[in-house]
Amino acid sequence: MRTQVAIIGAGPAGLLLGRLLEKAGIDAVILERRSQDYVLGRIRAGVLEQGTVELLDKAGVGGRLHAEGLVHDGVEFCFDGDRHRFNFRELIGRTVTVYGQTEVTRDLMQARDASGATTIYEAENVSLHDFDSDAPTVRYTKNGIEHELACDFIAGCDGYHGVSRASVPEGALRTFERVYPFGWLGILVDKPPVADELIYAHHERGFALCSMRSPTRSRYYVQVPLGERIEDWSDDRFWDELRRRLDERAAEALVTGPSIEKSITPLRSFVAEPLRFGRLFLAGDAAHIVPPTGAKGLNLAASDVGALAEALIEHYVERSDAGIDGYSARVLSRIWKAERFSWWMTSILHTFPDTDAFGRRIQRAEFDYLRASRAAASALAENYTGLPL
Amino acid sequence: MRTQVAIIGAGPAGLLLGRLLEKAGIDAVILERRSQDYVLGRIRAGVLEQGTVELLDKAGVGGRLHAEGLVHDGVEFCFDGDRHRFNFRELIGRTVTVYGQTEVTRDLMQARDASGATTIYEAENVSLHDFDSDAPTVRYTKNGIEHELACDFIAGCDGYHGVSRASVPEGALRTFERVYPFGWLGILVDKPPVADELIYAHHERGFALCSMRSPTRSRYYVQVPLGERIEDWSDDRFWDELRRRLDERAAEALVTGPSIEKSITPLRSFVAEPLRFGRLFLAGDAAHIVPPTGAKGLNLAASDVGALAEALIEHYVERSDAGIDGYSARVLSRIWKAERFSWWMTSILHTFPDTDAFGRRIQRAEFDYLRASRAAASALAENYTGLPL
Repeated sequence: MRTQVAIIGAGPAGLLLGRLLEKAGIDAVILERRSQDYVLGRIRAGVLEQGTVELLDKAGVGGRLHAEGLVHDGVEFCFDGDRHRFNFRELIGRTVTVYGQTEVTRDLMQARDASGATTIYEAENVSLHDFDSDAPTVRYTKNGIEHELACDFIAGCDGYHGVSRASVPEGALRTFERVYPFGWLGILVDKPPVADELIYAHHERGFALCSMRSPTRSRYYVQVPLGERIEDWSDDRFWDELRRRLDERAAEALVTGPSIEKSITPLRSFVAEPLRFGRLFLAGDAAHIVPPTGAKGLNLAASDVGALAEALIEHYVERSDAGIDGYSARVLSRIWKAERFSWWMTSILHTFPDTDAFGRRIQRAEFDYLRASRAAASALAENYTGLPL
Repeated sequence: MRTQVAIIGAGPAGLLLGRLLEKAGIDAVILERRSQDYVLGRIRAGVLEQGTVELLDKAGVGGRLHAEGLVHDGVEFCFDGDRHRFNFRELIGRTVTVYGQTEVTRDLMQARDASGATTIYEAENVSLHDFDSDAPTVRYTKNGIEHELACDFIAGCDGYHGVSRASVPEGALRTFERVYPFGWLGILVDKPPVADELIYAHHERGFALCSMRSPTRSRYYVQVPLGERIEDWSDDRFWDELRRRLDERAAEALVTGPSIEKSITPLRSFVAEPLRFGRLFLAGDAAHIVPPTGAKGLNLAASDVGALAEALIEHYVERSDAGIDGYSARVLSRIWKAERFSWWMTSILHTFPDTDAFGRRIQRAEFDYLRASRAAASALAENYTGLPL
């Protein structure tokens, strides 16, 4: 089999890239290790930057998103019980849209299925070859039979644990990492959200987040120490802990119910450099991880593949490799700014076991300054709604 | 002897407070442990916020400052050799003025001497009494003779090591501190400055600052590890190290010469809370210390005594104690924002021995973001030129 671009991974990054290429008449095959249902079953982020929405529109999959997504003009911070709303629309004229990653994936899959483009699910033992030459190939096994996919380019969109980054030769990759000393215990519940917009709460007991997927489905998180066991967290214990970290108004308005999902996510920052090796490109979680504070993961993946699609289109349509040559530096510049923002949001909103009294006051001063300064609030707003590429 | 306000310390904070009270017809006596010449010999900060200049004008001592001070519209950051200018005037319509603390002190001393107000230099064994009552007193020894000064209020403007904060009863004071693992090695030289404005430089070898006191007198600093000995730093070694931390253009333009002063300053953040105990108030370095990055020390002292003067004038003229009761909370709100800014400037511009590769990239990302974002640059500008009280 032959294609122009072999895309590794059928998550939102790979699917969006496939769709953008398809729109430009470029042929791509997607290989995915898991089944379609498994991919759809993953519950992830739900806040889309304005630029991500625009990219999904460009990919022709914005219909349901605009019908069902919730446009949020701002977010609220709650610091030791003091609530403050940051009105992004008023500050900088931009917004975010709440629409689950699962729904984005579903829309992209449906569009791809309808177009007849090839996606090979449950492709096992995927391996990447000769991407330092003009004729890379991807080998995989499907139903016990070995296959080879010849291509011009390989796009590694297969996440942090995928084969793409692991295929880069020893020594060619530099990595940067920060592991945070806590995780997020999250639950999903079929109850209306406590507020119209997200509430990011800092409390001496730890961070909490009131988020949502829809007007009837809420997502809540509390910061927990590393090593915490999910079995030790009954729904009741979770709700009690969440209430203690919110202001009185939110605690009273909270509508609780049985959790339909409950899990603990560790928090990590990670960046690999560079993101191009000959004819292999890394994009999305294969290239970088952000802690979820600030909701940048899916959005960064989208801007990566947006840039990669532009570069590949430039190659095929304009016969110029400038975009390909510039891809890594271009996206890394935005990635590091988003890493900075995610690290900063994480740093000011969580409690850290080794932060001293001075450091806690600095966290409070950040909140007080953000509240008092239009410039600082605008900087928060432009990062949250998405910096330009 | 009796006065309305006993001011402890004849540094710029005490002298400015005395002057603002005098203008309002309130009697104050200043007690200073050192001689007048000793106080004038201290070399300190040289960047005045716009609000500090306004306060000095209000105190009637702005004449020479406006004639000789250098108005700076911005500062430059140099990050690993990349220079970027932040134009405060263009960003937010505000500026700073370079005018040495020594000169501010001299102007205030001259005005006080001319007015005939009492300043007692070389007052030894100063002790504060009964400030929890309506009739506080200050005792001191002068030329071997014991004196007592009866007063309505005591203003502690005697610096970090002064007697004022030390007089607060055990347990009434909460303190917050951060000690940084490096110091600033500074030299003063009678040569024109390398650039028209200040250059704050980050380099993997450490921070450097190109500052000035006048068009013919320059002040330069390089970050050095704690425990460094001044004897190990010849002028030549200093200039070599400074040049390595600057961009090529600045390194070449640098005019070197024999140092007329050379010293190492440790960096520390410190805040005491609250700042009022009955009829004793703390202001300036007696209440808080900032690392010099961002030049907030003298400016914070000025805004403290500006607020304290307002509160005392309200007491004597309007017969209202609202200002006195609100003093501590009012100035601490601004102090913590300046502490945050000074800590942030210090954090992004210095090298820290235990910062990992991820942390170094975050420092770089801060610079790249500041360079790219008008909102972020405006936040820098409003902090550097001084937040409102």
